[in-house]
Amino acid sequence: MEHLVSMKQLSEEGIMALLERAEIFKKYGGREFPGKFQVANLFFEPSTRTKMSFEMAERKLGLDILPFESSFSSTLKGETLYDTVKTLEAIGMDALVIRHPYNGFYKELVGRTSVSIINAGDGSGQHPTQSLLDLFTIWEEFGTFKGLNILIAGDIAHSRVARSNADSLTKLGANVRFLCPAEWAGEFDSVDNWDEVLETSDVVMLLRVQHERHESHDVFTESSYHEQYGLTVERSKQMKDRAIIMHPGPVNRGVEIAESLIESPKSRIFKQIENGVYVRMAVLEAILKGRN
Amino acid sequence: MEHLVSMKQLSEEGIMALLERAEIFKKYGGREFPGKFQVANLFFEPSTRTKMSFEMAERKLGLDILPFESSFSSTLKGETLYDTVKTLEAIGMDALVIRHPYNGFYKELVGRTSVSIINAGDGSGQHPTQSLLDLFTIWEEFGTFKGLNILIAGDIAHSRVARSNADSLTKLGANVRFLCPAEWAGEFDSVDNWDEVLETSDVVMLLRVQHERHESHDVFTESSYHEQYGLTVERSKQMKDRAIIMHPGPVNRGVEIAESLIESPKSRIFKQIENGVYVRMAVLEAILKGRN
Amino acid sequence: MEHLVSMKQLSEEGIMALLERAEIFKKYGGREFPGKFQVANLFFEPSTRTKMSFEMAERKLGLDILPFESSFSSTLKGETLYDTVKTLEAIGMDALVIRHPYNGFYKELVGRTSVSIINAGDGSGQHPTQSLLDLFTIWEEFGTFKGLNILIAGDIAHSRVARSNADSLTKLGANVRFLCPAEWAGEFDSVDNWDEVLETSDVVMLLRVQHERHESHDVFTESSYHEQYGLTVERSKQMKDRAIIMHPGPVNRGVEIAESLIESPKSRIFKQIENGVYVRMAVLEAILKGRN
Repeated sequence: MEHLVSMKQLSEEGIMALLERAEIFKKYGGREFPGKFQVANLFFEPSTRTKMSFEMAERKLGLDILPFESSFSSTLKGETLYDTVKTLEAIGMDALVIRHPYNGFYKELVGRTSVSIINAGDGSGQHPTQSLLDLFTIWEEFGTFKGLNILIAGDIAHSRVARSNADSLTKLGANVRFLCPAEWAGEFDSVDNWDEVLETSDVVMLLRVQHERHESHDVFTESSYHEQYGLTVERSKQMKDRAIIMHPGPVNRGVEIAESLIESPKSRIFKQIENGVYVRMAVLEAILKGRN
Repeated sequence: MEHLVSMKQLSEEGIMALLERAEIFKKYGGREFPGKFQVANLFFEPSTRTKMSFEMAERKLGLDILPFESSFSSTLKGETLYDTVKTLEAIGMDALVIRHPYNGFYKELVGRTSVSIINAGDGSGQHPTQSLLDLFTIWEEFGTFKGLNILIAGDIAHSRVARSNADSLTKLGANVRFLCPAEWAGEFDSVDNWDEVLETSDVVMLLRVQHERHESHDVFTESSYHEQYGLTVERSKQMKDRAIIMHPGPVNRGVEIAESLIESPKSRIFKQIENGVYVRMAVLEAILKGRN
Repeated sequence: MEHLVSMKQLSEEGIMALLERAEIFKKYGGREFPGKFQVANLFFEPSTRTKMSFEMAERKLGLDILPFESSFSSTLKGETLYDTVKTLEAIGMDALVIRHPYNGFYKELVGRTSVSIINAGDGSGQHPTQSLLDLFTIWEEFGTFKGLNILIAGDIAHSRVARSNADSLTKLGANVRFLCPAEWAGEFDSVDNWDEVLETSDVVMLLRVQHERHESHDVFTESSYHEQYGLTVERSKQMKDRAIIMHPGPVNRGVEIAESLIESPKSRIFKQIENGVYVRMAVLEAILKGRN
């Protein structure tokens, strides 16, 4: 694997190989490449969990990590992403982890640079390592994807997570359903309400209401969203015994999910974050091994 | 020690054990934990000396340090400090060094997270590693605290250093006196003027006029402050031969202290900064040893 | 060498020793000082290539690198550069790489601090490691400087690169000519137009139009600059077979140089960036060896 820019590039076997490798990292710790590879994390949008997760994965693999401050780089002098990447390639970087607000930012890079690109989120497009950590968390829980009922609830049209996950889960044999306001459905079909799906769902995957991406307050107040589309304490009682709750974070407490459910026994929200480190180690290893 | 959030949690013996360990680090260099622990420095207020001092202490101990840019983190998406800390715990961090403008920020964290918290300054509250480095510098100079006369001069009410130091020094047997404008005395009793205390003081500890915290210019001009409450060259001549001058920095030159005294033989201002690294190594070691 | 602040401090032999050392690093990789020295990169102006190049050079030498965020440091509390440097000296730093908007910022530091200073660009003054990488790129290409015709084109008066390079290249035996708008010539003599110099030039060194430093749009539009002072495709055809094109970056595409020439066979623009890492390793090594 030279780059990882979209879940679409991974076959079912490719996904499973990464999940199995992540499981090894989780059980036995990192395999070190001390001082052999240089990487940088280029985040052109604010992020704590994804950026810190990559930073941790990179350290656990023993990589050299060069700091990149997007707010203080030559992009302020008008330098394009392409020129920044070519500069970092010339400096000798092996891989760049990039988050950027433009959908498909990587299209102008792949094939034109010898540095490996890992997409850490492009606008409302893809976020493949988030998808992989979601898949890993489900697989760790159930040991399979075949026949699982997955409910994805929330702002589907604007979510890079929803798109990647829906595609991959379907490919791996799960049955994916959506629940969302009509305004946010995009090309997806939504079920009408929670009641018809909650009792048969193995996974309830909540999406973040992205106040920073659109004027959601024009459409809903926080409490009316919670009432209609959030996972309330009342609704959670309809869930199967072994069913789990997932959320990519950061959580809007009391909006997508009731505050008291976040750290409840059914929640895998912090487990997802933990698993993100192992999945990213697997991705980085797969890419860097190819450069040896 | 699981956390270090306030000097109040340390007994006299606890303080002395840290100072003795810092002395060992100063004489013989670091004890390495290479690659064993992951830490991050979360500074929600500008800082050079405290942040860089922790960074140096962490490197000298061989820790893995994950970069955290508060100005570019998910706090911009409204994430709370609690959620950020829980995320970093899930990612696998062992300890977080935190500076935050809210007094007592750590109260919502301690007992609710398994990651260790080190308070690097909370509002006008505590700043325990600054206190420890002040104590170390005095102890290194005089070999004891018993019977020393310590004068703390300046903006006592707004200083986290003054509170921590006054408590600890008194506990360790020193005699602490204060000199400050009536407006800035808070609950402390101020002596009337320099003359009655200078000749008997072993340590003159100056505090920073915090222009960024209150409208000090409404109360004093820089030169009138220097005249009344600053350590002038003239006043310094009244000091005992072995007496020393301390200041936590950054110094407002010509305000709290005459420019020419900053690097004079009596000044321990840069020695304090140097000692900060060893004291922080001792604190980090004490906390991380407990996690093994 | 204790500091590197200006090309003027280097003799012809001093320059050649650094270039030869850089060549060794390029061929055989780094010589490690693991954990022996602590350095920091203080950039008070935006930069990608220079900062990342130093970061890479430092990692390849195995140095400990402390992060410094100028936008979040105590300079916000009014701390002077001198006080910041004295603080970092006290913390135990060995060398500081500094870029600062003030010409000659290093004059108040050299002789007053024991930490080594490397000038990474001072206002419109010097930028010695950029000069060294330019020299290295020319020397790598031609094996000598004697008798080479070097043309420097663009905003000469405001360019720290032009000044350093002109001095050094002349000292090393090259013949330096300038081409620039009369408004930007400063103390330099400009030739009248490209035609009289292109056919005899071995190196065409283009300078960046620094939109961020002056109101260049008042003087030229982008296309009129390209027409008169840029290296157009048409002009490039007049160049000698073995002649090369250089540019310090970041490039204003279609202004100083035609877009299609940037990655053309004559261009050494990305080679310059690559060579910057080896040259900076040589400088850092020369300075740190002296501290042992």
